[in-house]
Amino acid sequence: MKYGFFDKEKKEYVITRPDTPLPWINYLGAEEYCALMSNTAGGYSFYKDPRQRRILRYRYNNVPMDRGGRYLYLRDNQTGDFWSTSWQPVLKPLKEYKYECRHGLGYTTISSEYSGISTKATYFVPLGENLEVWTLEVKFEPKKGGAMGVKSRDLSLFSFVEFCLWDALNDMTDYQYNLNIGETKVEDDIIYHLSRYRVEQDLVGYFGCANAAPKGFDTQRKDFMGNYGDWSAPRAVAEGKMNNSLAVGWSPVGAQMFNFKLKAGETRTFVFVLGFTEDIKEPPAKIKKFEDPKAVEKELGKIKAYWEKNLNKFSVQSEDPELDLMVNTWNQYQCLTTFNWSRSASYYESGIGRGMGFRDSNQDTLGFVHLIPEKVKGRIIDLASNQFEDGSAYHQYSPLSKKGNGSGYGDDHLWLTVSVPSYIKETGDIRFLEQEVPFVGGEKATIYAHLARAINFSITHLGPHGLPKIYFADWNDCLNLTHDKEKAESVMIAQMVVYGANEMAKMAQLIGKEDEVKKYNEIAADMAKKVNKVAWDGGWYIRAFDEDEEPIGASSNKEGQIYLETQAWGVLSGTAQKEHALKCMDAVRKQLWTKHGVMLMTPPYSKFIPKYGSICVYPPGLKENGAIFCHPNPWAMIAECIIGRGDIAYEYYKAVQPAAHNEIADLYKTEPYVYCQMIAGKHHKDFGEGKNSWLTGSACWNFIAVSQWILGIRPNYNGLLIDPCIPKEWKGFQVKRVFRNSTYFITVRNPQGVSRGVKSVTMDNKQLASNLIAPDKTTGNEHHVEVIMG
Amino acid sequence: MKYGFFDKEKKEYVITRPDTPLPWINYLGAEEYCALMSNTAGGYSFYKDPRQRRILRYRYNNVPMDRGGRYLYLRDNQTGDFWSTSWQPVLKPLKEYKYECRHGLGYTTISSEYSGISTKATYFVPLGENLEVWTLEVKFEPKKGGAMGVKSRDLSLFSFVEFCLWDALNDMTDYQYNLNIGETKVEDDIIYHLSRYRVEQDLVGYFGCANAAPKGFDTQRKDFMGNYGDWSAPRAVAEGKMNNSLAVGWSPVGAQMFNFKLKAGETRTFVFVLGFTEDIKEPPAKIKKFEDPKAVEKELGKIKAYWEKNLNKFSVQSEDPELDLMVNTWNQYQCLTTFNWSRSASYYESGIGRGMGFRDSNQDTLGFVHLIPEKVKGRIIDLASNQFEDGSAYHQYSPLSKKGNGSGYGDDHLWLTVSVPSYIKETGDIRFLEQEVPFVGGEKATIYAHLARAINFSITHLGPHGLPKIYFADWNDCLNLTHDKEKAESVMIAQMVVYGANEMAKMAQLIGKEDEVKKYNEIAADMAKKVNKVAWDGGWYIRAFDEDEEPIGASSNKEGQIYLETQAWGVLSGTAQKEHALKCMDAVRKQLWTKHGVMLMTPPYSKFIPKYGSICVYPPGLKENGAIFCHPNPWAMIAECIIGRGDIAYEYYKAVQPAAHNEIADLYKTEPYVYCQMIAGKHHKDFGEGKNSWLTGSACWNFIAVSQWILGIRPNYNGLLIDPCIPKEWKGFQVKRVFRNSTYFITVRNPQGVSRGVKSVTMDNKQLASNLIAPDKTTGNEHHVEVIMG
Repeated sequence: MKYGFFDKEKKEYVITRPDTPLPWINYLGAEEYCALMSNTAGGYSFYKDPRQRRILRYRYNNVPMDRGGRYLYLRDNQTGDFWSTSWQPVLKPLKEYKYECRHGLGYTTISSEYSGISTKATYFVPLGENLEVWTLEVKFEPKKGGAMGVKSRDLSLFSFVEFCLWDALNDMTDYQYNLNIGETKVEDDIIYHLSRYRVEQDLVGYFGCANAAPKGFDTQRKDFMGNYGDWSAPRAVAEGKMNNSLAVGWSPVGAQMFNFKLKAGETRTFVFVLGFTEDIKEPPAKIKKFEDPKAVEKELGKIKAYWEKNLNKFSVQSEDPELDLMVNTWNQYQCLTTFNWSRSASYYESGIGRGMGFRDSNQDTLGFVHLIPEKVKGRIIDLASNQFEDGSAYHQYSPLSKKGNGSGYGDDHLWLTVSVPSYIKETGDIRFLEQEVPFVGGEKATIYAHLARAINFSITHLGPHGLPKIYFADWNDCLNLTHDKEKAESVMIAQMVVYGANEMAKMAQLIGKEDEVKKYNEIAADMAKKVNKVAWDGGWYIRAFDEDEEPIGASSNKEGQIYLETQAWGVLSGTAQKEHALKCMDAVRKQLWTKHGVMLMTPPYSKFIPKYGSICVYPPGLKENGAIFCHPNPWAMIAECIIGRGDIAYEYYKAVQPAAHNEIADLYKTEPYVYCQMIAGKHHKDFGEGKNSWLTGSACWNFIAVSQWILGIRPNYNGLLIDPCIPKEWKGFQVKRVFRNSTYFITVRNPQGVSRGVKSVTMDNKQLASNLIAPDKTTGNEHHVEVIMG
Repeated sequence: MKYGFFDKEKKEYVITRPDTPLPWINYLGAEEYCALMSNTAGGYSFYKDPRQRRILRYRYNNVPMDRGGRYLYLRDNQTGDFWSTSWQPVLKPLKEYKYECRHGLGYTTISSEYSGISTKATYFVPLGENLEVWTLEVKFEPKKGGAMGVKSRDLSLFSFVEFCLWDALNDMTDYQYNLNIGETKVEDDIIYHLSRYRVEQDLVGYFGCANAAPKGFDTQRKDFMGNYGDWSAPRAVAEGKMNNSLAVGWSPVGAQMFNFKLKAGETRTFVFVLGFTEDIKEPPAKIKKFEDPKAVEKELGKIKAYWEKNLNKFSVQSEDPELDLMVNTWNQYQCLTTFNWSRSASYYESGIGRGMGFRDSNQDTLGFVHLIPEKVKGRIIDLASNQFEDGSAYHQYSPLSKKGNGSGYGDDHLWLTVSVPSYIKETGDIRFLEQEVPFVGGEKATIYAHLARAINFSITHLGPHGLPKIYFADWNDCLNLTHDKEKAESVMIAQMVVYGANEMAKMAQLIGKEDEVKKYNEIAADMAKKVNKVAWDGGWYIRAFDEDEEPIGASSNKEGQIYLETQAWGVLSGTAQKEHALKCMDAVRKQLWTKHGVMLMTPPYSKFIPKYGSICVYPPGLKENGAIFCHPNPWAMIAECIIGRGDIAYEYYKAVQPAAHNEIADLYKTEPYVYCQMIAGKHHKDFGEGKNSWLTGSACWNFIAVSQWILGIRPNYNGLLIDPCIPKEWKGFQVKRVFRNSTYFITVRNPQGVSRGVKSVTMDNKQLASNLIAPDKTTGNEHHVEVIMG
């Protein structure tokens, strides 16, 4: 069953019924002000930091689901009936209530029809502003229902938000304090939220209507809702009367009432502004700016243009419209969202716990380096600054202070050897390797030296089998193998060393460090040899060795016999020889592949095994204990491309692709337009159910897998490689790719029905010597490239 | 307006309408299992630690208020109508729904009548068990409504709880984790909550019916409630059909359906058991134990007897029935509750933050030392063990590990010199001073030495005026005066030194340390002299000196001109000479006294003054910024008793006494049977509104003020002093007091209409030499004491 469809032209996902299995959300705001926005107007806003500067109060795990948001109520003053313009929170029966939500790039529109009144609300965060604008058009359409024969409608509109007392954690834990700090004021029809203002004079929330005068307000929640009332039938709306309450303590809200009449066919438009400022004098002008709906239209146009421009650097037209939708719009949109907000605040990340993950953030850069390379450079510098002198790194850092915290993971530092090559391949900025960046202790060293120390750490901290120690965990951060003895080893980290050392050798070559080329080639070869010797189980790669030197992910294990990571990384790192590569990917296919994607491991652990750690906390089929993790699935796709099996790569791609779940949304549950973190594995009763959407490394890796490996448009140190690995039955596809400031219009043809292999490449009617397009010497050019596979 | 009344005989508070201004709660369980229980069955349970072992999920600050609880639904299968036996969460209109809640000592009963069905639900935690029992009697009473002419009723009963995933903080913050760990099983009609069971095999919640077989169950919330449903109209109840769902991830709940029929006049009784165990084999036997409603009655009887016995050591019969109710039952009940749960979990303390406060816990002992002296001794030992070698102390400690954390307060350690004398006066256990207890660093020393070091710390860490430094704060922990310079001083701490040194001198005398008597008398006198010299402002005592050596709480201050603490402690510590005592208490009367109690200070700070700290965070009239704090109000009562003004002492007592607010409950808002932390001061628009009830030091100090000072039945090192200070118009009163294992029946007569002064004391018909009753040499005796005032 489906709940909506993609509007390809408008780049919108259109939700046609409000009762989606989970809230389906959007992110408004791409700079410092963020608004999480669900399809029924739920969500919250924050300024920079979702913990310390949370503007709206939201209740995670609320019953009913998804409460706290940007609510607009309409009341028919002739009948006393009232409803919401976003279905929630009044929840009128769907038989009487028509609804549509359009999540666009940086804006959301929700339309409703009820009792002859149609509404259209548009929400967005204008560029350069720390505020959100809501416009609401209200129209009386007698043909669409309502009291028979009524010629005009006497209506009241109520706006409502609930303010968070800035610190989201304190807001939900310390009531003896926070029930006493709430403060509001109302001046010139603007509601000011001033809790803690007396302390931190830089925290002001405000809410007002730009083009209509209210007939009353409430800023104390219980006045608006009634003492045992709630969002679904607030006292003020039921009675059509505000108390003009001011909050001094308890729960500050912002609510206003507007009375108006509509003749048949007449439309009235309201514009609301909700904002944050550090200057209490600012709000009147900020609100006035949006008095004219045309000004609002103009700002909305800017947002659309911003995204149009941002996502214009890679687009494809293939035989698979869902692939095109994801690659051209939604997958890149999600990638940029992970850049903007990392893992800080989603409908599953409550915005109070995690900073910028070292591992996450390095990987995320892969998905947007073609869009905003300069910002990637800045982020890599931030990351490298959180690396210790010994080569290891902090596990995360605060986005505000950029100070690190947590450490002890065996892999974090090595992800720098993934992100830096990706940045250089995209930009050609090989000089970046010479940029000096401090370690945590203060010592400065080049980026190249940072990478060198990362690798050095892992090849000098080895366990009994000569493989890198895993410490607290590696990428699979629920495999907690270090307890009494610091002996456990990670095969995946060993493979990452091979990957990183290979890249180091190539970069050393480029900057003319010949002895370093040799050194890193040797490191890669030695580690690969060791892995193939001690970690090859006969049919696949072992995952790790525990502190008793026993294997995990081996045929000798009863549970957790095979893991995905070391097969995929075996291939993509170059560790796996031809025969091993085929064998291990066949094992993945045979044992881990399901119709909903590749499971992380199998069989799941049925009981807790203390020496394995938190992987066993989860019930079988969930999270690391045998779910289909969407993040490593693209590793399997890449590995399949490397071994040339385009049909399998594409099948894997489609299995976890959100758009492909549109028709089974009632099973999949999360948004069909963005990747989620995991899908319940076949050992779980809800096999196929998605969880934890939006802020996940799944976004970047899936984009890499489909754009660079399946479509095969892959930046390299020396240029743009064209190396597709597609389903045999595809006749071809077209890609537009901006690369190092020139634009390439690439047409790929597959006359012989192969998966892989490029027979000829012609650019601007000239035949090229290989499938590598050398970088343009001047910028801003357009090139037409014809590729014949075979 | 009032919402209920006291049933004196049954020692119950009876709530007659469910829509109390705030939830009015009770504590069930006095040992290791605690159940917070509101008047509409809201609340949650925990085992020992409300953060790590939370059994039920509760939503603080929910909309509507007070959701999550112990819910029982009834469904009329002939009409499809359904309701709750506790009003919440279905919230039937009060015109059609009759209700009564009786909060008793350790149990709560909620009765309802709707559509001819009357119910009576009783909830309690049996002694010695880690479980709670709910009984529900359902009766068909045709005369009380319902469908006309219907001869029998076809009903379904639904039980419902929602489980917390044990760690209450994680439960509300980490959804990418906790939406994946939920697990339940249902075996022999018992619902087991096993989330994290695979890790911590000792965490099992269970829920079942002891005397009826269910027709179905749900353990996944969305199955019971419906996807956008909530507590008020759960899918299962609306449809009369369970899904028999098992939770593997998402939100585990426990719900069962029971179908039954009732003829006119017929009653059916159900018994439910909700429990916690560390042994998964235990639940069937635990539930079966309560199969017979008679067994339940017996266990309920034990609880009643337990409280009867516990509260039997002090009772009064005076001319003020409200005073009698509070003193005999509710104030002592609240004191014991603060012993059981400190500040850990209330409807305002969310149970995840604070441990046992050093300052709080020392003071709390004053309120229950007459009830459970042995436990007070143990607690004092725990507290002294969290004192550092230098005499200062940790600010709090964990109730589970007893390890301390936080420090840097100027006063914490001195509260030991309040609690230890109180314990010795009550018990006569002067040898306790010789008991050896370690400091934090491991060094062992006697309790006497611990107290000596406490005083020594404060007399050796002095500021520019020679007064003790305040450091982060003193009792008023929002007066944060130490910033750049460590110079700020506390007058209150100086007065506490006087108090403590005076007590030390008396104790030194008792154990024959003559030189110490002299030493401490000198310390007390010197410090008192200094305070009177540098901190006497002319009309009252200054509160503190800030780090610029400027006074706080002085006539030269425009705001915060006078504080209560240093006036009351000036008198009760003995610092204030006669003239100063009268003057400063007159100033309190003139400037701080309101009809709702004595404000903490005035005028409140209208703006933030960084060097004063968080006191200015609160709006004027709330919390430390000028509210009526109920904790120091009794200090004013005690001071008034010391200076002999019984009418004023009593007026102050009545102003903050909860029972006296019964008629204005709509203003006061919190429970009329227990003290709250604060009442909004006269500068706040809701002047008179109470906040933060139950776990507050207000309980112990008010009990001390009324029992030891107004009624004047005051333990002393040498016996029981009879020294009332009452309103002049009182003709007398009677007290029963157990003191050092003998029982005293004391009759006080006031023929001359004085406030204070004892003319004669006769015990067992023998005239005593003074108003001090020497301790009995044998135990278990009864004595009749006649006191004539005049």
